[in-house]
Amino acid sequence: MKRGLLIVNTGDGKGKTTAALGLMLRAWGRGFRVCVIQFIKAETGSWGEFKAAERLEIEWHKMGDGFTWLSKDMDATIRCARNGWELAQEKIVSGDYDLIVLDEFTYPLNFGWLDTAEVISWLKMHKPPELHLVITGRNAPEALIEYADLVTEMNVVKHPYDQGIKAQPGIEF
Amino acid sequence: MKRGLLIVNTGDGKGKTTAALGLMLRAWGRGFRVCVIQFIKAETGSWGEFKAAERLEIEWHKMGDGFTWLSKDMDATIRCARNGWELAQEKIVSGDYDLIVLDEFTYPLNFGWLDTAEVISWLKMHKPPELHLVITGRNAPEALIEYADLVTEMNVVKHPYDQGIKAQPGIEF
Repeated sequence: MKRGLLIVNTGDGKGKTTAALGLMLRAWGRGFRVCVIQFIKAETGSWGEFKAAERLEIEWHKMGDGFTWLSKDMDATIRCARNGWELAQEKIVSGDYDLIVLDEFTYPLNFGWLDTAEVISWLKMHKPPELHLVITGRNAPEALIEYADLVTEMNVVKHPYDQGIKAQPGIEF
Repeated sequence: MKRGLLIVNTGDGKGKTTAALGLMLRAWGRGFRVCVIQFIKAETGSWGEFKAAERLEIEWHKMGDGFTWLSKDMDATIRCARNGWELAQEKIVSGDYDLIVLDEFTYPLNFGWLDTAEVISWLKMHKPPELHLVITGRNAPEALIEYADLVTEMNVVKHPYDQGIKAQPGIEF
């Protein structure tokens, strides 16, 4: 029997979103119905993957304004996150998908823009058992880790920024 | 100026290959020329991603026979790995690619089927400076980490096998 997994990619390293993209691609390769909802990241922050998703006709929603705690309009930034979560709830209950990615979703939880306990109890009640749900972002809350089936921590061992090498298009975004 | 990175995804967790797939997809989304060479994994071990790559017309070579130290024909298994490395060398020097993935390449290094020092000195001499090269696999050798630009360690925090949940098609392969 197919069991939908709650997958969390966390840690300080690269590869959280990137591994979620890999899952998305693998699922797509098998003909799964996939949807990606991006929290936080602005338009330019995910150009390569967005282009790819477009060409694969994968549903992709950018719900972030690119700001976190540095936002100059905090109300708008929080509103973005809450709109993103409302959209996610719709998509999750719809039954239209096999895999949904909530990219950088730990941030609205950690910043208190959404209540972690409420989100988890909503998921427990409403996530279809066969749906795979992928959540990425640093510092995944303890309660989310407890609820999750598969949790991976991506840690930096060595980073090119430390050597003065800039972010590379096609690699990091 | 574009700088080709040597990227290593290592650690005991999920997500090493998956994050490489994500990079591949992001690069493809930007129109990069991509090639994947899989060491170790057999035909069935990567069905979802292989199907996806096929649909994207990404060049993909399966050079493994699915065996490592449990191989019943060790000579054949070692030959697979060496053929894979020869193919990789050809592709790397060809100048035909922007991103090459050597999936599970740490294993032939760790098993001594290929000499790590020789491989690294070959790469130092022959890798075009603008080529991004991604190497995945557990226990990346120290010398490889030293040579690499970006190293991420994927660690297991929680794994569904521990809870008696089987590997899921479209998620793990």
